[in-house]
Amino acid sequence: MPAVGAGLTPAQRRSLERLFPGEQSLFDAESMLVYGLDACRQQRLPWAVVRPACEAQLVELLRWAQAERVPIVPRARATNTVGGCVPAAGGVVVSLLSMNTILEIDDHDFVAVVEPGVITGELQRAVEARGLFYPPDPASGRMSSIGGNVATCAGGMRALKYGVTRDHVLGLRVVLPGGEIIETGGRTHKNVVGLDLTRLLVGSEGTLGVISRIILKLQPKPQATASLLAAYGTMDACLAASRAVFAAGMLPAAMEFMGRGMCRCLEQLMPPPLVPWPASTNAVLLLRLDGDPECLAASLARAQDAVTPFGPVYLELAQGREEEALWDIRRSINPASFKAGSKKLSDDVTLPRGRVLQALTRFEAIGEEAGVRVLFAGHLGDGNMHVSVMHEPGQEDAAARAKAAIQETTMALGGSLSGEHGIGLVKLAVVDKQLGAVERRLMRQIKQIFDPHGILNPGKAY
Amino acid sequence: MPAVGAGLTPAQRRSLERLFPGEQSLFDAESMLVYGLDACRQQRLPWAVVRPACEAQLVELLRWAQAERVPIVPRARATNTVGGCVPAAGGVVVSLLSMNTILEIDDHDFVAVVEPGVITGELQRAVEARGLFYPPDPASGRMSSIGGNVATCAGGMRALKYGVTRDHVLGLRVVLPGGEIIETGGRTHKNVVGLDLTRLLVGSEGTLGVISRIILKLQPKPQATASLLAAYGTMDACLAASRAVFAAGMLPAAMEFMGRGMCRCLEQLMPPPLVPWPASTNAVLLLRLDGDPECLAASLARAQDAVTPFGPVYLELAQGREEEALWDIRRSINPASFKAGSKKLSDDVTLPRGRVLQALTRFEAIGEEAGVRVLFAGHLGDGNMHVSVMHEPGQEDAAARAKAAIQETTMALGGSLSGEHGIGLVKLAVVDKQLGAVERRLMRQIKQIFDPHGILNPGKAY
Repeated sequence: MPAVGAGLTPAQRRSLERLFPGEQSLFDAESMLVYGLDACRQQRLPWAVVRPACEAQLVELLRWAQAERVPIVPRARATNTVGGCVPAAGGVVVSLLSMNTILEIDDHDFVAVVEPGVITGELQRAVEARGLFYPPDPASGRMSSIGGNVATCAGGMRALKYGVTRDHVLGLRVVLPGGEIIETGGRTHKNVVGLDLTRLLVGSEGTLGVISRIILKLQPKPQATASLLAAYGTMDACLAASRAVFAAGMLPAAMEFMGRGMCRCLEQLMPPPLVPWPASTNAVLLLRLDGDPECLAASLARAQDAVTPFGPVYLELAQGREEEALWDIRRSINPASFKAGSKKLSDDVTLPRGRVLQALTRFEAIGEEAGVRVLFAGHLGDGNMHVSVMHEPGQEDAAARAKAAIQETTMALGGSLSGEHGIGLVKLAVVDKQLGAVERRLMRQIKQIFDPHGILNPGKAY
Repeated sequence: MPAVGAGLTPAQRRSLERLFPGEQSLFDAESMLVYGLDACRQQRLPWAVVRPACEAQLVELLRWAQAERVPIVPRARATNTVGGCVPAAGGVVVSLLSMNTILEIDDHDFVAVVEPGVITGELQRAVEARGLFYPPDPASGRMSSIGGNVATCAGGMRALKYGVTRDHVLGLRVVLPGGEIIETGGRTHKNVVGLDLTRLLVGSEGTLGVISRIILKLQPKPQATASLLAAYGTMDACLAASRAVFAAGMLPAAMEFMGRGMCRCLEQLMPPPLVPWPASTNAVLLLRLDGDPECLAASLARAQDAVTPFGPVYLELAQGREEEALWDIRRSINPASFKAGSKKLSDDVTLPRGRVLQALTRFEAIGEEAGVRVLFAGHLGDGNMHVSVMHEPGQEDAAARAKAAIQETTMALGGSLSGEHGIGLVKLAVVDKQLGAVERRLMRQIKQIFDPHGILNPGKAY
């Protein structure tokens, strides 16, 4: 590990101490350790950590950092799984967790204005208390921040019906390297004036600017939900059932899937009756519908009619507390996965919806060939699969080979290397499997406009 | 009017004739006249018109045009209302209407792959015949092209529930000046790899590249629709009723509004009983719900319960043929508007949803002060109002003053100069009322990356 503050000159350190007095800046290794990693397995000690309380401090920081050519790595809760928050090139980590005010919830405009450090789940509770709804629900949402969600264009289960984070961002305030502030979009729900800088910034993984304020679009809160779980003996039957739901004209709020290996793990973690399906289950379909309470029973019946012809070995319709018990199973797939191995290499490849069966069949075979266990579960409705290569110490090479083969299969089937997590640091080496040379050149040229000296989250994303 | 082909040298004309033999190129003023205008009131004769049949011809054209520094103005059905298709700086107009093949409709992937000249309404019929749904429904959709819809990020009535064109574009193939082809996005419904070039291109008004292929996201087709028309004596009551619909947790597929002046015009064009409301009507709310047929009666009742306390002077619930009769009224607002004046200056300003009443009240007053009639109707649900300043010959200055005041009011209330139509040529002079200097500079720098010699639709958009 490098010496404390290795990359800063004494003068630079003094400048940061002036800009961020007292506990707003950290320079000792022990305190900074946690700021050098995220939910991926890589880490690097930053040169310094600063914790601005307001946009004015961000402006000063980015003016200073550009002049001094010091890398800046923005961060909030760092639930990122691909190293997006790891200061791989050193530099100053900027924690945005102190900028965590919900500035406004306007139930006439259907708009929320928030600082980037607001926790997504807290915003959701606050808007729902007023009959409003912020649909994006990344699995990390109870702990991750809106700023991080915007920087990564976070998805979630409700993306099927409601779209991902980008579809709910109306406008941004962003501090650029050098300290200039830009404002994109606004608080209208429609806006086609100029190039869409808002969506260029959403998902840019902290490489173009540091977000200081976010305007989000809200919707009326659906009054009720209802869910259906259908377990099948084969993956084939399960995916055919999912197609029948669409063919019935339904777009559920969520359409989740759990594969054979994941079912076995869940049965170990949550023995029957917690997991309600029989041992003959090899694939599970889990749907959530939302809407007017008067309608849900009929919609649930329509979904049941759609999935029944494919011979479920177990079928449950649920509302209220029983409904949440079904979703607790889905929420347990991460802890359950470790029943199949003590180490995990995970991925969030996305397939064209019609090619999921072919891909998953191949993923299982890849695991068998490599002698590791490949588990999958995820957002079947939009083809976004969370694939976990479970393995033991000593099997790291086999696991890495399996993960690479899964990515190759995904690309061969017209898929995407990431549906939600992004590229960050971890997938940068493989991003050229998906992005062409001209497209990458354009992205880097765009970055150069925003960040001419390359100080923002260097070595990430594209 | 300039001489035919004024801007082309004889050698350039010969090059174009070689690249676009026979009827693929036009050089005579009479044939080109129609290619020099769109649905705005400005026009300029192009230097030449070419009609590529395939992407390879587009590549050759853009290689040639960049080398020769000849402006290129892409165009399809030219329903654009802000001069986006007018060759204001001269140059070659490229009609994409011959590239009009639906290449693929995949009901497993829920994807359509189309050439830019495909007519939106034709695509919709084709996908609906297979139980699929392409939600964006710009008013021009029966005649406008998907390529034009993408270039302008077209909206429509269903944007309230389903979003605008940008929310349904998964990927693009685009030919850049110089002839390079880029591919953005793909056929997965989720994708967060690299900067979002797809959405940078959507709505870029033909200034960054020429779209040669579009991958669209499709959804299951809702099985049924139902509508509600509620007429009120005051705008105040009508807008309060609209808020009550949202407060009941409903997000209708469409929520349209017609103001007092528009009601009077419609009554003249479509005398009772075609227009069903009484003479005491001063504001009309029109909703469309969609979903499972078993549910719509209950949802309609919920909407009725929401709007009834505000004292409608007329209320109608409808399905099937009667439902379309209600929407025929809405579809007649353009011809009806000419009952209030022989000349029209129109705008599509967008307000934060909660500020619509304040804005519309002011718009009426602006009309009275200027001695012209200001009509409004439009997409109340997302605050996107189509405002028409109706006037007579000789009143052009008063109408222009009223339009400017409407834009000022919109900006003062935190609105946007355009919700659907874009900036094009007509609004370029006022775009700095909305876009800051730094933001505009960034947009122009981005353009320079894609189009270093500024040959693509020069003098437009930002």
